[in-house]
Amino acid sequence: MKTRLTERFGLKAPIVSAPMAMAAGGRLAGAVSDAGGLGFIGGGYCDADWIAAQFGEAGNRPVGCGFITWALDEADPGVFDSVLARGPAAVFLSFGEAAPYVERARTAGVPSFVQVQDLTGARAARDAGADVIVAQGTEAGGHGATRGTMTLVPEVVDAVARDALVLAAGGIADGRGLAAALMLGADGVLVGTRFWAAEEALVAEGFHKAAVEASGDATRRSSLPDIARGLDWPAPFTIRTLRNAWVRDWEKVPGGPASAEARHAYAEAVAKGDADGAPAIAGEAVGLIQDVRPAAEIVETMMQEARVALGRW
Amino acid sequence: MKTRLTERFGLKAPIVSAPMAMAAGGRLAGAVSDAGGLGFIGGGYCDADWIAAQFGEAGNRPVGCGFITWALDEADPGVFDSVLARGPAAVFLSFGEAAPYVERARTAGVPSFVQVQDLTGARAARDAGADVIVAQGTEAGGHGATRGTMTLVPEVVDAVARDALVLAAGGIADGRGLAAALMLGADGVLVGTRFWAAEEALVAEGFHKAAVEASGDATRRSSLPDIARGLDWPAPFTIRTLRNAWVRDWEKVPGGPASAEARHAYAEAVAKGDADGAPAIAGEAVGLIQDVRPAAEIVETMMQEARVALGRW
Repeated sequence: MKTRLTERFGLKAPIVSAPMAMAAGGRLAGAVSDAGGLGFIGGGYCDADWIAAQFGEAGNRPVGCGFITWALDEADPGVFDSVLARGPAAVFLSFGEAAPYVERARTAGVPSFVQVQDLTGARAARDAGADVIVAQGTEAGGHGATRGTMTLVPEVVDAVARDALVLAAGGIADGRGLAAALMLGADGVLVGTRFWAAEEALVAEGFHKAAVEASGDATRRSSLPDIARGLDWPAPFTIRTLRNAWVRDWEKVPGGPASAEARHAYAEAVAKGDADGAPAIAGEAVGLIQDVRPAAEIVETMMQEARVALGRW
Repeated sequence: MKTRLTERFGLKAPIVSAPMAMAAGGRLAGAVSDAGGLGFIGGGYCDADWIAAQFGEAGNRPVGCGFITWALDEADPGVFDSVLARGPAAVFLSFGEAAPYVERARTAGVPSFVQVQDLTGARAARDAGADVIVAQGTEAGGHGATRGTMTLVPEVVDAVARDALVLAAGGIADGRGLAAALMLGADGVLVGTRFWAAEEALVAEGFHKAAVEASGDATRRSSLPDIARGLDWPAPFTIRTLRNAWVRDWEKVPGGPASAEARHAYAEAVAKGDADGAPAIAGEAVGLIQDVRPAAEIVETMMQEARVALGRW
């Protein structure tokens, strides 16, 4: 299955694992790259020590590193530079003004992936010189916005595919989604939730269990986990999680879980893997996921399913 | 392009036009059926005279008729019976408890399409005996809910495709979307906004113009048009429209355009085709639509584009 993405990055599969903050460590990223895809470490909120440790876990395998762009703005500039100095397969920027980082990456000879949530963002990413533009639909787990994958991907392809590669993201967890993304004109897919539910992901068992049991009806976008973590996420970004009892209860409370007590309880639940005290951060694709499996098997199964779906036509 | 849908209904294209209330009249439905798809009249709020007139416009062409299920509950029971008595190609039910109508349609020998917005709804539609279950993602124009097409369709396929045909709806406006829907396991597609922007649609020029010029970023779900029309739509349904100045202004007003004055102004704008005084009712697919064309051309182009996309693999 050759696409511009596989050719450009020397992959066997047009499958990229999302740089999910905290969940996508070096083991996961390395396993995805080993299996023929491209794995990203989730550099997220820019903890330099954590990122360094995860590159250690990835070993010599070619992996990239992703960042929450607005967090990068607030971080020590050395964090981004030290990642560039490692010569990663790529950097990945989402949720903020990517242009300065794309420029610094280009100077360092590192390709940049820029994730966008609307057409306006895609045009800005193209103008910034992004090598790969990831069109992320609202189905995605974790942070994102409101547009759906089914329209966003072809519209972004029409606008920017002459200047950049385009990946589809949001709700893609099996080979049917991969095949659909190729039909929409994407050069490949970015997969979050399916790899979040990989054995190698840094996710507590309680959250995995809750997500695997849930249907796609069971997720919701909100700002509640960000309030509970004291993270000042800018509009229009919200975070998709399971809508567990914690979410349903706090939805009713003006201001949400902002008290010191509520924050403390949330942090404890996360630390314990308590899926009642904090919601699993996962996308609508949970309804397509019935097990926690090794990342290599996920890549292989997606490719096989995509071939079956494409072969039928 | 043969699918279970084309075989079952004797179609040349696995393309069904949505029964858009007020916009999908007999001319549009008939043109879609003439072109090898299956056209539906938008029976919507159950105006018996309007529906009869639209069947007249469709002439002898095999078309179906759709209803807003909760409006059917409140309407004269004779409305549904008189449509069944015409021997339509099918009836289409969305936004309410479809089971009693599916039963009456089955007794009359008329196939029923039931549109759902989540997995729970799909299971209920299957249990009700629906012949075709339409999985409608949030990208769709007009009324709908929150789940995205990319995950909803394969999840519904997994749950109900043994018992019923499954169509993908929401954000499908070209052959790429059709091909993607087939990859997701759908037997065909339900297309709204693209046919809303057909020459035969009962849509004023001002609204067509506003939609064709808009990108997919420019739509929003709200309840504002329902408030302005005095329509008591139940949760969780909202209506996707262009987010024009009227929407942006009323978003800020608690309670929305509920006054007699606001309602009157809205009705006047609709009547005049004034796209500033009322928003065009259209989906995210507006970003994929650059022109108003005859329905037959739309069907033909979608088929051709889908063949190209599929042929590439």
